[in-house]
Amino acid sequence: MTGPDYIYYTDLMGTMLFAISGAMAANRRKIDIFGATFTGFVTAIGGGSLRDVFLNLRPIWVDDGNYLIAILIGVFLSAVLNDKLDRFSRTLTLFDAMGIAFFTIVGLQKSITYESSTIAAVILGMFSAVMGGVIRDTLMNETPLIFRKEIYATACLSGAILYVTLPYFGLPEGINAFLSALLIFTVRILAVKYKFSLPIVGG
Amino acid sequence: MTGPDYIYYTDLMGTMLFAISGAMAANRRKIDIFGATFTGFVTAIGGGSLRDVFLNLRPIWVDDGNYLIAILIGVFLSAVLNDKLDRFSRTLTLFDAMGIAFFTIVGLQKSITYESSTIAAVILGMFSAVMGGVIRDTLMNETPLIFRKEIYATACLSGAILYVTLPYFGLPEGINAFLSALLIFTVRILAVKYKFSLPIVGG
Amino acid sequence: MTGPDYIYYTDLMGTMLFAISGAMAANRRKIDIFGATFTGFVTAIGGGSLRDVFLNLRPIWVDDGNYLIAILIGVFLSAVLNDKLDRFSRTLTLFDAMGIAFFTIVGLQKSITYESSTIAAVILGMFSAVMGGVIRDTLMNETPLIFRKEIYATACLSGAILYVTLPYFGLPEGINAFLSALLIFTVRILAVKYKFSLPIVGG
Repeated sequence: MTGPDYIYYTDLMGTMLFAISGAMAANRRKIDIFGATFTGFVTAIGGGSLRDVFLNLRPIWVDDGNYLIAILIGVFLSAVLNDKLDRFSRTLTLFDAMGIAFFTIVGLQKSITYESSTIAAVILGMFSAVMGGVIRDTLMNETPLIFRKEIYATACLSGAILYVTLPYFGLPEGINAFLSALLIFTVRILAVKYKFSLPIVGG
Repeated sequence: MTGPDYIYYTDLMGTMLFAISGAMAANRRKIDIFGATFTGFVTAIGGGSLRDVFLNLRPIWVDDGNYLIAILIGVFLSAVLNDKLDRFSRTLTLFDAMGIAFFTIVGLQKSITYESSTIAAVILGMFSAVMGGVIRDTLMNETPLIFRKEIYATACLSGAILYVTLPYFGLPEGINAFLSALLIFTVRILAVKYKFSLPIVGG
Repeated sequence: MTGPDYIYYTDLMGTMLFAISGAMAANRRKIDIFGATFTGFVTAIGGGSLRDVFLNLRPIWVDDGNYLIAILIGVFLSAVLNDKLDRFSRTLTLFDAMGIAFFTIVGLQKSITYESSTIAAVILGMFSAVMGGVIRDTLMNETPLIFRKEIYATACLSGAILYVTLPYFGLPEGINAFLSALLIFTVRILAVKYKFSLPIVGG
């Protein structure tokens, strides 16, 4: 398996995991199976689609049907494993932390490839990871999790900022990407474990 | 009247009907006439605009002012006929079922014309019909109807899947489009009449 | 300072002011500093980004990092001056009225430059000014202000309509833009002062 292949399949896997988390959110709210599929779809492709629209590109799922198949598999798994998935909530938190780390860095790289400004690439990387969930929560008529939860989007931002900083220290791309993703993962996991949160202005 | 002309005027008519339904929703909530116009506009062009943005095209109303005039006429009719429209709720359900059938198939055809994957075309066809309403409900701070109602988006999906399947049986485009739209219309009307709904995972 | 430079810096200033108003809304709701920054960002760039996406362009902040720096400054100011900003609410209303006047006309001009239909340009001009706030309110799970408040988006519309009408009277572009922006500003300020509101259908 070559490098690009590896990234492609990881991307499909991440899409499926995000679809599972979206569909589970719908199942918990007793939404019908269409609504669960729709929610899984929005969660999985919302962030990357928004990034691609801002870069004036077609979202990848419009051209590559495999992403939609990955989502359908994720939604199917969320239905079959519905009772068991709740017991695996710590495992899901791990997968989610890996997912946001991966999507942030891949989104950032794509934005730079398509010549966004560096600071916009940082934001678009973070958007790739978190905006699917924001759109999901907004459609479900809830305050988006990123406004309520322990450090989440901020973990993505910290890794994205590291990624655009490390080249100044002469680090090769691969190691840079790995370290930046590791920072996102670590910040997120520590934030969940120790319930880190950010200060509030006037709070 | 030639074929394309026929489709163009049907599209304008459908846009007007969707604007009526959006403006009526606003009128029921005692939103002012600007809000009603805005809501009619969003309902009428939301789905098609989202499809076009995902296809990396300009939405048609940006270039063709007739769509916006059709929306203004629809909003005006919803105001003039406000008291009477409620009495015609069954007629409106019929028009709405025709509208989603038409918009799904036209949206699907456009997606295929602009070379989306087949499975993406199915989704973008359904989006063309239902996302205007989803955006309308989200802006109104309500759970979107498609998460609550009898089979609606699923009717669109069923017709869209039929449309991409029938060519394998050698059916000509025109008959295929007609049968697929008919399926959407029929499923929707039966779902309203008999209050069909989809199962819920874990429900 | 040349003409275009003047517009560029005014645009950055308007972006910063919109970021202040967005971040203040978040601070009032006791949202953390990431959420406040995110809300400031969405409020500042939401309307213009939506316009640019509909025109099939990349939003300017994707290519020009200065917009994001202006937003960060605005968010920072909203935090530092948090206690004092509330006392300046009348000043902020003045700045906001200037902001929507400016953004409407600039958005309208950009839409015409990129060859939208005239009626679409009117709508996209208004969108540039108000949709950032609509997205902000929707994400915060509130009914958008434009559905509740005294005349706001309608002020933008009135100026936009004036702008596309005045050329028929042979007025030069610069005077036209100034008069149209002045109309928006005046309608908005009078609406706040005298609590003007629009009629409601069936109300």
